[in-house]
Amino acid sequence: MEMVPSAFTRRRFLAALGIGTVGVAAASACVTLPTNAPAATPHPADHGETGSAGAGAADMDAKHEAKIKAFPAATKGKGGQPMPFRMEGDRKVFEVTCQMADWEVEPGKVVKAMTYNGTMPGPEIRVTEGDKVRVVVKNELPESTAIHWHGLYTDNLADGVPGVTQPPIKPGETYIYEFTAAPVGSHMYHSHHDAATQVTAGLLGAFIVEPKDRSKLPKYDSEYTLILNDGSHGFTLNGKAFPATEPLKMRMGETLLIRYMNEGLMAHPMHLHGMPMEVIAKDGYPLPNPYLCDTQFIAPGDRYDVLVRPVNPGTWAFHCHILNHAESAEGMFGMVTVLVVEPAAGAAAPTLPYVCKLDRETA
Amino acid sequence: MEMVPSAFTRRRFLAALGIGTVGVAAASACVTLPTNAPAATPHPADHGETGSAGAGAADMDAKHEAKIKAFPAATKGKGGQPMPFRMEGDRKVFEVTCQMADWEVEPGKVVKAMTYNGTMPGPEIRVTEGDKVRVVVKNELPESTAIHWHGLYTDNLADGVPGVTQPPIKPGETYIYEFTAAPVGSHMYHSHHDAATQVTAGLLGAFIVEPKDRSKLPKYDSEYTLILNDGSHGFTLNGKAFPATEPLKMRMGETLLIRYMNEGLMAHPMHLHGMPMEVIAKDGYPLPNPYLCDTQFIAPGDRYDVLVRPVNPGTWAFHCHILNHAESAEGMFGMVTVLVVEPAAGAAAPTLPYVCKLDRETA
Amino acid sequence: MEMVPSAFTRRRFLAALGIGTVGVAAASACVTLPTNAPAATPHPADHGETGSAGAGAADMDAKHEAKIKAFPAATKGKGGQPMPFRMEGDRKVFEVTCQMADWEVEPGKVVKAMTYNGTMPGPEIRVTEGDKVRVVVKNELPESTAIHWHGLYTDNLADGVPGVTQPPIKPGETYIYEFTAAPVGSHMYHSHHDAATQVTAGLLGAFIVEPKDRSKLPKYDSEYTLILNDGSHGFTLNGKAFPATEPLKMRMGETLLIRYMNEGLMAHPMHLHGMPMEVIAKDGYPLPNPYLCDTQFIAPGDRYDVLVRPVNPGTWAFHCHILNHAESAEGMFGMVTVLVVEPAAGAAAPTLPYVCKLDRETA
Repeated sequence: MEMVPSAFTRRRFLAALGIGTVGVAAASACVTLPTNAPAATPHPADHGETGSAGAGAADMDAKHEAKIKAFPAATKGKGGQPMPFRMEGDRKVFEVTCQMADWEVEPGKVVKAMTYNGTMPGPEIRVTEGDKVRVVVKNELPESTAIHWHGLYTDNLADGVPGVTQPPIKPGETYIYEFTAAPVGSHMYHSHHDAATQVTAGLLGAFIVEPKDRSKLPKYDSEYTLILNDGSHGFTLNGKAFPATEPLKMRMGETLLIRYMNEGLMAHPMHLHGMPMEVIAKDGYPLPNPYLCDTQFIAPGDRYDVLVRPVNPGTWAFHCHILNHAESAEGMFGMVTVLVVEPAAGAAAPTLPYVCKLDRETA
Repeated sequence: MEMVPSAFTRRRFLAALGIGTVGVAAASACVTLPTNAPAATPHPADHGETGSAGAGAADMDAKHEAKIKAFPAATKGKGGQPMPFRMEGDRKVFEVTCQMADWEVEPGKVVKAMTYNGTMPGPEIRVTEGDKVRVVVKNELPESTAIHWHGLYTDNLADGVPGVTQPPIKPGETYIYEFTAAPVGSHMYHSHHDAATQVTAGLLGAFIVEPKDRSKLPKYDSEYTLILNDGSHGFTLNGKAFPATEPLKMRMGETLLIRYMNEGLMAHPMHLHGMPMEVIAKDGYPLPNPYLCDTQFIAPGDRYDVLVRPVNPGTWAFHCHILNHAESAEGMFGMVTVLVVEPAAGAAAPTLPYVCKLDRETA
Repeated sequence: MEMVPSAFTRRRFLAALGIGTVGVAAASACVTLPTNAPAATPHPADHGETGSAGAGAADMDAKHEAKIKAFPAATKGKGGQPMPFRMEGDRKVFEVTCQMADWEVEPGKVVKAMTYNGTMPGPEIRVTEGDKVRVVVKNELPESTAIHWHGLYTDNLADGVPGVTQPPIKPGETYIYEFTAAPVGSHMYHSHHDAATQVTAGLLGAFIVEPKDRSKLPKYDSEYTLILNDGSHGFTLNGKAFPATEPLKMRMGETLLIRYMNEGLMAHPMHLHGMPMEVIAKDGYPLPNPYLCDTQFIAPGDRYDVLVRPVNPGTWAFHCHILNHAESAEGMFGMVTVLVVEPAAGAAAPTLPYVCKLDRETA
């Protein structure tokens, strides 16, 4: 009986804190992700109850462990990076090319994605309220498209709905949108043409409008945009499926802003272990009365801004709580990542005032 | 390169404002709506990537355009109209006949609906708090039924649950419910017998209780009840599927109250383009702290009251943001309509301070 | 035409109030519950429209009535009972054995459940904030497992995520978790290993942390924990499906606290007939501005605390308003129960100031 954390757990814990040192299994085999339907939940009697119970359990554990050891797995491409712009007079000009791209969702799973500038999600557009914005959209896809600025107050002709506010942007065409950035908040841009397919296939990105007067913002030390998707490419966080999802990192004493956005076809309740989230805004609009929770439901089209202030350091699981979007008998997959909370800057590694005992009294 | 709105967009915009002049394609072909399951999202590689890419794109665009040109499509029957009543002493008496009816969900798609007084949704019942209400329910359906007053404080025996508070109302029978109207708010009436079938098949309607003291109401210029459904008749708004859904209309400077009600089996996040919604009540109860959003999630049984104050004039798309409830490769369908915001009364047509440029530089 | 409540309704009403006298049909046939998918909604034209319309209606009514007459049906086993503990020094020690068990979900439907201490849900753990807690977990399942303390502020190594914070607890092993109970509120404990299967199969329970200073609690007279599940064992409330679900009971003038918890894979909007619910906490955290509703949406991982103060006595239906989780053409099933509101203590049986008239004018 061990009265202190086992070597296993201590090693994992420390490895997680210095997470770059965790080995990457670039060629690990990948589970086939269910699409648009809950995974079947096998009857519990289906595994482990045959004569080879122990063997079945060990096999399942090995699969689970392999998945976790592969995390965070290296994959090609990273979505949601800042989109550069140039000034033309007093106007910020962004260039968006709609194009097919091979996109590695998880190690070895490369899909045909529809992308903005080659990544899924597309680059993050970030401007300040009142900015004059021009977005030059070139369509290199084999089908028509259009961009809707979800949450923004554009003039009607810039709203991006083919047949209502503009013609579709045909293959090879370029279309230019102009508007003044408002309102402040976490918004999105995505296709509004054959959108059930095009958005879930990758034509989506964050569009964030910052206030001129930053003193109005809540206090936070860092921020993270987390885009949910669940279309033909599987269950993803920022375009990647576990174990290729990105771990979030912060320190004790800091505050992290997470901007949740759902671009999928299903709602996802995101659960953060070990600490509360303070929900401060819905669709970019500050809530008059922020509330605390540990599981925040995010429906398609929703954005929620939450502040995270950790209670304890460690490696905290962070996943969709529709459990078959996150785990199967083959191990964790899809909408899973972790929040790594390091000790406060300059502080010693945390003393661990608890005891987790592993007592292998085999039955 | 055009530096002003293209003829196409200007024409559409003006047509939309005078929306009655838009042609109606009464015989347009209709997509088969998926029921109780998300539409499969075809892999993006499935269309447009063959040698005939341009042809595929043009074909898809043509289908989309045909759907939109058909909007708002004329269909037979309009649900949710005010239900007349007569006074008997101090009591308001409503007569409801449960009957099968042919119901045109969209042009050419006529279904066997179960209805209250022949329409889907049934007529809207509207009373004042404290009103003594009698509803005489005659069942002309081939099966039994009963009515539950969803959200109302009836006495138990008027609650409408066969086997618990009453016997089922058999084919040919008449049943009478009496209660005093309370509480104030947006409520519903619907079947509580084989309800998963009967409600989604059409046995549903709005039941609105207005306050005696109308000075307690929020200020609004007009109101609209929007009932969501998703049963065997497909994805519908007030019993109609796009392009047969009804456009909402208002003017700049006005406030519109929308009463959302979900009578379906799925939740629907309704997204209004270009402006916020102020959510002021849940299930008829005023929220202590109304909040703003542009996407409001409405689950089965929910009612949400929201106030809309437009930011810009125009024709604003308004749809469920579970995108496969609203659009497929065949074009928009199901839970889609628009909010047409006309210029303020007496004001000139809006100057359009933006530029949407269409630059057909074919690749 | 009867001008007073029919004998049928009065009898049912009184029977419900003295609910123990309702007969139990221990061997009633059971509907096969759909798993992980909405029940198909048959087209309304499919029943009752043949020549034998009346016969079809009577047959359906008989099936519905049989289900209701069987309620509340006796089944073996009751989950969620208080978990005993012993003190070891200043520490409360709970013993949890993970074990397969035959579990009777409804009369005659016995499933292979994965359980904590033999019941589904597992016993309710209830402690006071600041309590030092030890949970000794013995795994007698044929597969590995681990327990996550959903909502609690444990130290990281007690968080229960195999591969991240601990090794899996293998068949035959014992694992010990220690932590200090916080924060106050309605939390859960459940498997975090192959969790989509293990949790829905029964490895779940309530974990409630009460405040040291009970004067901070809202005022209520009684409380009820209501755990939703929808996995391979069907749609259940506290591990039982209608007609084996447990009726809730209270008196006029009292306040009932309901702690909703969702351990399933789907969200469920719970609708209480005839009275409001005041929503006072999310995930254990008091809401800064409680709100009223009659339908509360509860997503997987969510907890909501609501206060119920009845408006009228009676037997009030209480069910998931995704109607195909609650009713089919075979009658009510799954997520259905009732709240029985008895007259105030010492008060006479309620006078019934309403009139429900049944007028059998056969067509």
